[in-house]
Amino acid sequence: MKLLVGTMGGKAQVFRVEGDTAINLTAALPQIGNDLQALIEHDALMAQAADVTGEAVALDDITPALPVDAPGKILCLGLNYIEHIKEGGYDIPDYPAMFLRTRQSIMAAGAPLVRPTCSDQLDYEAELMLIVGKGGRHISEADALDHVFGYTVFNDGSVRNYQRKTHQWTPGKNFDQTGAIGPYVVTPEDLPEGAKGLKIESRVGDEILQSSNTGNMIWGVAQTIAIMSEFTTLEPGDLIALGTPPGVGHAKKPAPRWLKPGEVVEIEIEGIGICASPVRDEADLAKAAE
Amino acid sequence: MKLLVGTMGGKAQVFRVEGDTAINLTAALPQIGNDLQALIEHDALMAQAADVTGEAVALDDITPALPVDAPGKILCLGLNYIEHIKEGGYDIPDYPAMFLRTRQSIMAAGAPLVRPTCSDQLDYEAELMLIVGKGGRHISEADALDHVFGYTVFNDGSVRNYQRKTHQWTPGKNFDQTGAIGPYVVTPEDLPEGAKGLKIESRVGDEILQSSNTGNMIWGVAQTIAIMSEFTTLEPGDLIALGTPPGVGHAKKPAPRWLKPGEVVEIEIEGIGICASPVRDEADLAKAAE
Repeated sequence: MKLLVGTMGGKAQVFRVEGDTAINLTAALPQIGNDLQALIEHDALMAQAADVTGEAVALDDITPALPVDAPGKILCLGLNYIEHIKEGGYDIPDYPAMFLRTRQSIMAAGAPLVRPTCSDQLDYEAELMLIVGKGGRHISEADALDHVFGYTVFNDGSVRNYQRKTHQWTPGKNFDQTGAIGPYVVTPEDLPEGAKGLKIESRVGDEILQSSNTGNMIWGVAQTIAIMSEFTTLEPGDLIALGTPPGVGHAKKPAPRWLKPGEVVEIEIEGIGICASPVRDEADLAKAAE
Repeated sequence: MKLLVGTMGGKAQVFRVEGDTAINLTAALPQIGNDLQALIEHDALMAQAADVTGEAVALDDITPALPVDAPGKILCLGLNYIEHIKEGGYDIPDYPAMFLRTRQSIMAAGAPLVRPTCSDQLDYEAELMLIVGKGGRHISEADALDHVFGYTVFNDGSVRNYQRKTHQWTPGKNFDQTGAIGPYVVTPEDLPEGAKGLKIESRVGDEILQSSNTGNMIWGVAQTIAIMSEFTTLEPGDLIALGTPPGVGHAKKPAPRWLKPGEVVEIEIEGIGICASPVRDEADLAKAAE
């Protein structure tokens, strides 16, 4: 099933996507609510959602919202594609580098990707993201895929000079409204096992910035869930980002390729969809909000 | 005002501490609810709380709960005391190392501090913690102290070999139930400006493990708020930990001094109180829960 959370004027609703159209699940089953959390927590509701019929609305009429509005945590793998590790000057690790993102740092696909006033080093990172279904601790690799609710697209927007101010990446990974998520969430049965073997790309217009395949990840989905749940209890609705392939802006030769206001950066993952974000300057957005 | 969130059998209530006793504020003003969040968000309620009279109950009859049960985020400074930076083998930075903790990694004072099965390198870290009152972004150092609701005690429990598996500290700082908070929250008017000049100590029984003063912090409370709010919007109820002084277990000579099940580790900050945590083995706790 392909799901979309979004608004048509009012509050966010949950839709089931069919081609270029979508069926409003929340209208048919109000207990579904305004994001995927209820569907994630209630298998029976998810089964009902598959059978909803109703008027098909055009996808273009829906403004994407976050798939999970208040994720308990957002866990990210840092270095998960060999060629990206090399371009960043890091050694190949035998355990993944991990960091956390805050709720304020993420936004829906289509919303502005904000370049902060204090830096011009705003960078893109195409990533596969999974949404945790069934929670748990000490989940084995063998059981891990049973804990995935679905997959979506993530742009792990990073402010590089703040990421590297110290050895801890936290500030550069947590500027307000720099991490775009969505818009589509595809459940596992509609993708290859572990979402492996999918083309993943980032682009600005015709310029292809990253182009790789999720099969190139060092730690796959199942392994990542096992590694993370060794230290933390995963909960339904938690988000896990799986790292980015080579081609990020800071490593481009002969000069870094930073995102500039006015550009639209697109992340596409085969079989899931495109997460497009217009880049805006913080100061301009603040003025517009006045 | 000195506040305490805790239970007396049933749900958590908010108390105002007077010496060895406490007045139940939630009983008098039910809109206060089960943690400090409502008091943090509503100045008028806070003013009413100061005037509540009622039966004084003994502090010993109250089991501490988390001051804020669902903090939006938990931001931590990593290296904030010169001598601790040296003992860890790090260079003196000109910007603080920061990391995030998850909700699952924290618990109330008095609750077990869990040594995970996968490691025996469980370490203590005495820290001052502040609770954000008024939220905001781009908060200046001059205005920053107006954004503090109160101060509490934090034990930033760390699993060292997981903290240092890669350059990113996230796993070692996020094992379930390793960060103890509380039990008392003291509002700014009852402490020196910026909670400066307070003795801070960690102990197991008579063994003093860390002993320093919050005046030794490189980045004080106001500076930390300014630095963090440069990249993230602070929200009411967010928790900010301010780093630990020297004397942590992994740096003890001639051998590291890890916490062992059966020990009770105490963190004390002058004018705020003692956060005591019994150390328990994950496997023993799991057995006890069966």
